[in-house]
Amino acid sequence: MSQNLGKASVKPEKPVYILNSGSIVGTKEGQGPLGLLFDMVGSDDMFGCESWEEAESSLQKTAVQLALEKAKVKPEDVKFIFAGDLLGQSIATSFGISTYQIPLLGVYGACSTCGESLTMGVITIAGGFAERVVCVTSSHFASAEKEFRFPLEYGNQRPLSATWTVTGSGAFVLGNEDALASYGERARAKVTGMTVGKIVDYGLKDSMNMGACMAPAAASTLEQHFIDFGSQPSDYDKIITGDLGKVGQTVLIDLLKDKGYDISSRHMDCGIEIFDGETQDTHAGGSGCGCSAVTLSAYILKQLEEQNWKKVLFMPTGALLSKTSFNEGKSVPGIAHALILES
Amino acid sequence: MSQNLGKASVKPEKPVYILNSGSIVGTKEGQGPLGLLFDMVGSDDMFGCESWEEAESSLQKTAVQLALEKAKVKPEDVKFIFAGDLLGQSIATSFGISTYQIPLLGVYGACSTCGESLTMGVITIAGGFAERVVCVTSSHFASAEKEFRFPLEYGNQRPLSATWTVTGSGAFVLGNEDALASYGERARAKVTGMTVGKIVDYGLKDSMNMGACMAPAAASTLEQHFIDFGSQPSDYDKIITGDLGKVGQTVLIDLLKDKGYDISSRHMDCGIEIFDGETQDTHAGGSGCGCSAVTLSAYILKQLEEQNWKKVLFMPTGALLSKTSFNEGKSVPGIAHALILES
Repeated sequence: MSQNLGKASVKPEKPVYILNSGSIVGTKEGQGPLGLLFDMVGSDDMFGCESWEEAESSLQKTAVQLALEKAKVKPEDVKFIFAGDLLGQSIATSFGISTYQIPLLGVYGACSTCGESLTMGVITIAGGFAERVVCVTSSHFASAEKEFRFPLEYGNQRPLSATWTVTGSGAFVLGNEDALASYGERARAKVTGMTVGKIVDYGLKDSMNMGACMAPAAASTLEQHFIDFGSQPSDYDKIITGDLGKVGQTVLIDLLKDKGYDISSRHMDCGIEIFDGETQDTHAGGSGCGCSAVTLSAYILKQLEEQNWKKVLFMPTGALLSKTSFNEGKSVPGIAHALILES
Repeated sequence: MSQNLGKASVKPEKPVYILNSGSIVGTKEGQGPLGLLFDMVGSDDMFGCESWEEAESSLQKTAVQLALEKAKVKPEDVKFIFAGDLLGQSIATSFGISTYQIPLLGVYGACSTCGESLTMGVITIAGGFAERVVCVTSSHFASAEKEFRFPLEYGNQRPLSATWTVTGSGAFVLGNEDALASYGERARAKVTGMTVGKIVDYGLKDSMNMGACMAPAAASTLEQHFIDFGSQPSDYDKIITGDLGKVGQTVLIDLLKDKGYDISSRHMDCGIEIFDGETQDTHAGGSGCGCSAVTLSAYILKQLEEQNWKKVLFMPTGALLSKTSFNEGKSVPGIAHALILES
């Protein structure tokens, strides 16, 4: 059997486990519906640092530390770290994880980066190149607003289609069977297949409606996934997107209905779960590299551990824009990477 | 035999070939010592586009097209594309390669990205996850000056330690033995080992002397490489860094002498080769994601094909800064990834 499946998918021959994971979030996320599930909640969003960027770096550092401790692994026993964030030149990563001295492969896929880092980690372990790797991503509301829109001090108004960038970081220790044996406890889940997304550009230009910009990419990856694996929506207990929010969710469900797939009864979006849209004034929902990562670590893996769900499709979604591309009048293309997670 | 070697290295069990490659550069690079070797040289640095960023996107698009044509491969026969650039949120990639509709795994390692993309490509093919992948990186002098320093219109003065960002893109079609058989011609080279670098931060803060900032990372990766592979400098016909330039070269050679390795007789730097420092006013040398990529495609692979060199170590180097981190007074950490290339 080959690990190469269909047009855009891969299927690890050897099992790859999420041994354990760590999550840290900001105050607003801590007050949301998933608040009690995170490993750590900051008392303010500076996390003792002097800038928003430093604060985001500290999130990655802490998430990795939590994941390593919970997986009972030392940094020197990790072969590679796959890491990324939303800031230009991924500086949250560069200044966040250097103290671990783990060889770094930096990844960028906008808010889909959590899915990309896990995909590359699984490929590396299933290919026999590593026993253990760490995957980490982060985002921070204030550093992201500064990077993509306006500094907070400007007091910019936000339309209802806008999402709220999650302040948080999630880190995952992946390992092969030997690593699982050394760990000596149950893994949180195993990854049994991945579908890599392509850039999908419907020409939408509204950076305040990223859900609609990303939904076509999510639909494209999902359709390809069903084809490559010969599967259908009912094979999964949940089909979980990263940060489409309420507007993007509607678009995704409609696009897939047109292609003959009905996911309406089992679709879930991390961005919708993480905040209470009624009381937290977050509009369409949460977003960012950290959104899907912390929701996976704190909520989705817990459901799999407790066997409430047996098999889910986890698909972080990304909007490939920068302030330069936006100001130059370019569209906002999307991308989405899907992973099958089983309990 | 395992594909997992030493602390930071991997060694593909199955051969992975660089089937063919493509390079496109700007006018200044075309006038340099390697000018006649590139596949395509632009008549001006806008390449028919309306912004520097669009111009850089067009470089990636053309480099991929050249590589695919030369390797006799259609986009639909490529499983994944590993791509990246220096711009915030990698927009040269997002708007450059979308037309090929190849599933994308975005990578970021500053100017080391060419090495990182090839490393991930080799892991994916040697692990059996793909028959063919494409790896592409780019940089553009004007988009990089705007991204990291000052817009060209400002007329900023440059110290002699500064490097000149190369305008160019290099793309590589990697394949396994089946892909080589379909190709029906000799591969340009094969990749027989890789060492992944970690973030090395000596606390240097001068973004106008990136060679010195990156040299400690290059020294770290090289030392780890020699340890992991049980090799020594004389095992390689050339040890080739990406863009250390003249200042960084001196620092690297000195740092390695302190560790007991003398690479002075076989060190070469793509940044030093690509421009004539005497007549082209490029100061310490060329730099950027495109520098090592186009030099590999046009010059290094040619030397391997002609058997002038049998085995080289190719190690692109990256400086992990952004204008935000620089303006906030942060240091400029470095990273370097090494690949063994054999004829």
